[in-house]
Parts: sequence; C-alpha cells; structure tokens
Amino acid sequence: MPAPIITLTTDFGLDDCYVGAMKGVILSRNPAARIIDLCHTVGPQDVLQAAYLIHANFSYFPEGTLHLVIVDPGVGSDRKIILATACNHLFLVPDNGVLSPFLKRNQITAAFSTAREDLYLSPTSQTFHGRDIFAPLAAFLTKGNPPETIGPEYDTAELIALDLPTSRVDAAKATITGTIIHIDRFGNSTTNITLHEIGILNSPPESLELTIANHTITGLQANYTATAAGKPLLIINSQNLLEIAVNRGSAQNRLNLSLYDTVSLRITAKAARP
Amino acid sequence: MPAPIITLTTDFGLDDCYVGAMKGVILSRNPAARIIDLCHTVGPQDVLQAAYLIHANFSYFPEGTLHLVIVDPGVGSDRKIILATACNHLFLVPDNGVLSPFLKRNQITAAFSTAREDLYLSPTSQTFHGRDIFAPLAAFLTKGNPPETIGPEYDTAELIALDLPTSRVDAAKATITGTIIHIDRFGNSTTNITLHEIGILNSPPESLELTIANHTITGLQANYTATAAGKPLLIINSQNLLEIAVNRGSAQNRLNLSLYDTVSLRITAKAARP
Amino acid sequence: MPAPIITLTTDFGLDDCYVGAMKGVILSRNPAARIIDLCHTVGPQDVLQAAYLIHANFSYFPEGTLHLVIVDPGVGSDRKIILATACNHLFLVPDNGVLSPFLKRNQITAAFSTAREDLYLSPTSQTFHGRDIFAPLAAFLTKGNPPETIGPEYDTAELIALDLPTSRVDAAKATITGTIIHIDRFGNSTTNITLHEIGILNSPPESLELTIANHTITGLQANYTATAAGKPLLIINSQNLLEIAVNRGSAQNRLNLSLYDTVSLRITAKAARP
Repeated sequence: MPAPIITLTTDFGLDDCYVGAMKGVILSRNPAARIIDLCHTVGPQDVLQAAYLIHANFSYFPEGTLHLVIVDPGVGSDRKIILATACNHLFLVPDNGVLSPFLKRNQITAAFSTAREDLYLSPTSQTFHGRDIFAPLAAFLTKGNPPETIGPEYDTAELIALDLPTSRVDAAKATITGTIIHIDRFGNSTTNITLHEIGILNSPPESLELTIANHTITGLQANYTATAAGKPLLIINSQNLLEIAVNRGSAQNRLNLSLYDTVSLRITAKAARP
Repeated sequence: MPAPIITLTTDFGLDDCYVGAMKGVILSRNPAARIIDLCHTVGPQDVLQAAYLIHANFSYFPEGTLHLVIVDPGVGSDRKIILATACNHLFLVPDNGVLSPFLKRNQITAAFSTAREDLYLSPTSQTFHGRDIFAPLAAFLTKGNPPETIGPEYDTAELIALDLPTSRVDAAKATITGTIIHIDRFGNSTTNITLHEIGILNSPPESLELTIANHTITGLQANYTATAAGKPLLIINSQNLLEIAVNRGSAQNRLNLSLYDTVSLRITAKAARP
Repeated sequence: MPAPIITLTTDFGLDDCYVGAMKGVILSRNPAARIIDLCHTVGPQDVLQAAYLIHANFSYFPEGTLHLVIVDPGVGSDRKIILATACNHLFLVPDNGVLSPFLKRNQITAAFSTAREDLYLSPTSQTFHGRDIFAPLAAFLTKGNPPETIGPEYDTAELIALDLPTSRVDAAKATITGTIIHIDRFGNSTTNITLHEIGILNSPPESLELTIANHTITGLQANYTATAAGKPLLIINSQNLLEIAVNRGSAQNRLNLSLYDTVSLRITAKAARP
C-alpha cells in the first residue's frame, strides 16, 4: 500500500526554495512519502484565502491524506500548531483560523496538540516551522503513526475561527446577497452564493439577475461559450457556487471586480423583461 | 514495471489549486500514477501556444506516456474530448486544434471518443472537466486499459486543425520568410524556420542575414556567448529552429519582438559585405 | 531502497516546458528516479543567487542526493560541466562559480569531468544542455553508477570561484558590516551576518542596532510578531543569518531595500539609550 499523500498549501512562493527544503526534510525522514503541491502562491499572510482553497479542494484527494496548510504570520510566537481530523482527512496547520470553513460546518472530528518536540528539526528556527516542525511531523504521521502519537487531544472548541464572508437569502424579496470569495487566474470571480441557495428561490435560470456595482448580468448559462466573446455571464462553477465570468475574457478586468466585493442576486419576473 | 507517466499541460496557472485537484483525482483512482507538470502557464485560452509546447516536448518522455493538454475555452460546450495516438504516445485533449502540429505532419495514428461517462466524476461540473473528466480518464488509462476501452474510434479526418504559422522558402531569391512562434523566459525568440530549410539554401553560416522590423542580424553562432554581452545573435536552438537571442540579455526586450512577428532570412553574397 | 533524489535548481522558469523536458529525459533513462524541484525562478543568468540558494538548502535532503544547478549563461561554449562531491552530496553543475560557497568553506571533496559523451542525448543541442547532457547524466548517476564512472577526476583547485559578498567584524568598534544576500517573497531581507559573528560581540540582543541607508532598527526579536504590524525588526532566520523583516509586511518595500545593499550592525551601550 503506498504511503498516504501529503499535500502542501503555503504562501511561500516558488522563488526561495522554502518548499523544496520542506520536501527534503520530509523525504529524509520518510523516503516513501508522496508529496503533492496544492498551492504555494497564497497571498502572503492571507489566511482567509488559504482557508477557502483547502476547503474547496481537499476532498478530491484520497481519504487519509495529510494536508499541510502553512500560511503562518505568527510563526515563532506562541500560536499553536494543531493536527485536526475532518471528513476522514488530516490537517496539520497553525491554529490561526485556516480551518474556519470546517469549523463553521462542524466538520472537525478531533484535534491534537503537536507536543512531540523530539520530532522537530534541531535546532528549531524561529522563522521556518514549515521545514523544522511541520515537515518532520508530516513524515512521522505518514509512516503509519496515528494522530494521537504526536500529542494529547486538544479541545476543538478552542480552535480559532475567523469571520467568513456570509451570504444572506431574503426569500420574501427574492434576493440573495453574497460576496466574491475567490478570483482565479482567468479572472473568473467566485461568489459564496451556493447552488442550494439559488434552489431555495426556485426560479428558472433565465430569471436570475446579478448586480455588482453598476453592472447587471442576467440569466444563468451552462458554459462559458454561451454568450458572445467578451460578454459577462453567470455560471454555476465546479464548487457549486455562483461565478461571474466573461467568455474568452476576464470578468475581473472587464467588470473591475475585487476580492470580497458584495454582489446582489435577485429574481426578476420574466413577464417584466422587455 | 512503473505505471505510464501522465504529463499535464494547461492554462490553469499555479495560483488556484486546479492542478492540485486534478492530481488528487488521478491519485484517488490510480495510486501508482506518476504525474509530471509540463507547463501550467500557457496563456489563458491560447490553444496555439499549447499546440507548440506539447509538440516540441512530448518526445522527451518515454513511449506510452499519456499527455493531457487542457487549454479549453469551450469547456462545458459541445466540443469533444478526444484520445489520440501519435508517435507511440497518447494525447487526451479537447478537440480544439491543440493537435494541429501532429495533424500537419500526419502523425496521428488513431483517435477515440471519450464516451465512458461512467468513469467521470459525478456530478460532473460544467466548468472544470480537467478534474471531472480528464483526470479520471487518465487514471483509468494508466492502469493498463488500452485506448479503445474509453470509447469508439473517431475519424481522425474530423479532428479540428488550426492554421499554423507557416514559413516559406524562396530558393530563387535565397530567402526564407518565417514567424516568431515562441518567446521564452529569457526573451529568446524562436522562429519556425528550420535547420532543414536553412540547409536548402546550402549557404555558409556567416552569410545568413535576418531582418525583423528595422533590425538586421548577421551570421549564425554556435552559442550564446559568441557575441558581446547585450548583442543580438542567431542560433539553431534545441528544437532545431532558428532562434533570435541576445547574449546575457533578452532579444524580446532589446529588439522589441512580439509573438507571431514576421522575420525574413536571406543569404548575402559574402563578397558583397564590406 | 529508493533511488537517490535528484534536485533541480535552474533559471528556466516554469513557462516554457524546459523543466518538463528534462524530467522526461531523466525518467526515460531511469524510470525510478525521484525528482524534486528546488527552484526554477532564479534570476536569468544570476549564478550568485543560485550559489546562495543551493548552499542554503542542500543539507535538508538525504545524503547521496544529486543536485543539478543549471544557471548557465555559457551553455554551448567551452565552459565545463563538473560533478562535485561535498558534504556527502553530489552536485552536477556548469563550472561557473555556482559552487563558490562550498569552495570558500573548503567543502568540496572531489570533482569529476563529465567526459561520457556517449551518455548525452544525440544530437546534442547548443542551447539546452540541461535536457541533453545534465538530464541523462543524472539518470545514469542515480542508477547506482559512482561519480568516477562519468569522467576522470578534476582538480578542485581549478574550479571557478566567484567573489562572494563578505561580512567584516570590527571587534574594537563593536560593529559588523554586511550585505543583503537574498530577498524572499515576503520581502524578508537576509544579510550575510551570521549568528556566530554576532556572538563574537557577546552583546545582549536588545543592544543591537542595524543601520541601512537612513533607517535604524534596534534590538533582536524572537519572532515576526514581536513588533507592531508594519514595523521593521531584526531576527535570526532559518539559516542562522541576521534578517531584516517587517511584521505582516515587506521589509524590502517598507525600507526600500535592494539585493547586495550594505548594512552596518553595531552594539549600543544600553545606558546610552533614552
């Protein structure tokens, strides 16, 4: 049986060998480790984006995968490093709110302190715990050692939770207010309005109308080519979230969108449309 | 025997976990898969550059390698996904012209529809077929299932071919007209003028003269250091193509070159040079 | 026993498939090869940064690891390709000074010419020795062939050494003059002033005062959060070097720092501080 996969999500970038050094430590301690880069270009210290990315993507890996999420402005301070279990996956993270989407959904099943300092690289630096603490713990855990072997259980109620952008359904007014929570390389802008929430409104796709700043986009499309090139459109994306896109273009640039902008989605009476 | 290699060439970038999610799906279905990133920063929706990159690089992998090339502005529309065989390699691609360099050279030996929807991730999103269709098919194919097990044979004459930039040899005038088809990180600018075409002119290297816009570069050099630092030069590159470079500098910046610029190469009578 | 690890450090970038093609060649020749990317975004032709990065990070890999460091402006010229051994690791590099930090510390134990042209890819290009020479040699070496099988021993005294930025301790004046030798993604600016050198001054951490241009930073902190957000600080980093950082910000931007800037560290009498 192959060793469990280790995924890496960091804000280390790829220009400074930080990721490479972590892999070296992991492979020094567990030569059979299988390491997959999830993302290393999270905005520096942007815990909220890391939280979004890991929650959106962890489930595509096999159960038992160990996910390291290291966006860690508090490195070297008294912030804790925690191993948490959720949805049959493992998460080794600084306790800084990066697991908030899991906490919000009550998905954390257990948490453990990482007390086994004998496993740390020695000496342990003050500035690079990814290499000196996370990497050796990951090697140890993927050698078949269960979570409780790296430290005592930790009260999940003590885990730090960040305020996540919320969406709000007003069924009476037939509107949903949401937030842009991610903008990707293509300029596609993902809102936190879910397919489920749109379903509550129980409306035909063509009656949807999204307003952002002074732009209005009408109708829900089945793919990016459903509008003319350069035209904005709404689509349900691969996370089952409402996304603003532009066929063969960038919604971000075309509509001047920013992360955390507010959007408003409402149902329009079809008869009222010209 | 190790599993066949899967290479990935996409325009997904590395900032959004799209590539990581694909790898998770592949490894969930085939834990022994070996995945190599070829390039993930193809210009968004730039099918022509993806076509250039895969054709220039596939042959350095072992025979039997499965190449996924996903630059796919038509994702979710009725564009087809095709498995093609060429030169003893496999290519799983949207049918959008990305295999044009193979078609132009009559290198495609067979093609197959990807009809096995039972293999797709369920539900299948409209926006991310890389994760939901390409990845599970790749896992299936590298577990020893031959091409015909994923769908019926597809008429290769039906595959979409794009117009590729052409070069033109005028032996009478001793000139070749070509196009810049790739500019790399160093600013080295590759033309589509081949070593073979230059051979037709049967001229000594020092008699070559390339003109682009109002710049002229003379002679063919054996390496980048053959001119003074900062000076433009012509060289046969690692694809056996004529390349415009600058020693310890960027030809792109120095000569203000752009992708798909036209260049003209001619033979000058040596005696005529001052 | 798994095959030795091959690490790759280059200035090839990730946009042009150069790295992917190298991996294809390595895996074609040695299917069991394990390849780790250390960094591919070294500044084009910046041998000095490559030298810093490999020396700072090689030791986190298992002994016996083969490190390829290919920042090679002289590719195709008569510059040599050398296999060197140091600290029980192997280094396959162009002989252009990239091993200077090892040479300065007398860490090179042996060097070998790479004379085995029969191992090269044929034909061998003039512009891409990473693919045509380094990759096949790496595959060969990690199949269990010892260093001396790729060529005769080479006099280590002949290896090219670059002038590295130096630091200078003036114990009488209680000052150390140093240089910024690396700036990372976060804007953290690493000097070449070592923990050991600071120890020579035998001073309490709070008495340190670093001057750069018209900025002065006082005291040595235990972690990045020890100052208010946006405030500069001094810290000993994960290389045991003095680093200039800004809590939740970029020292590079905040203090307008550049690579190879000179810094001056001195001891201030504690009583003299207000």
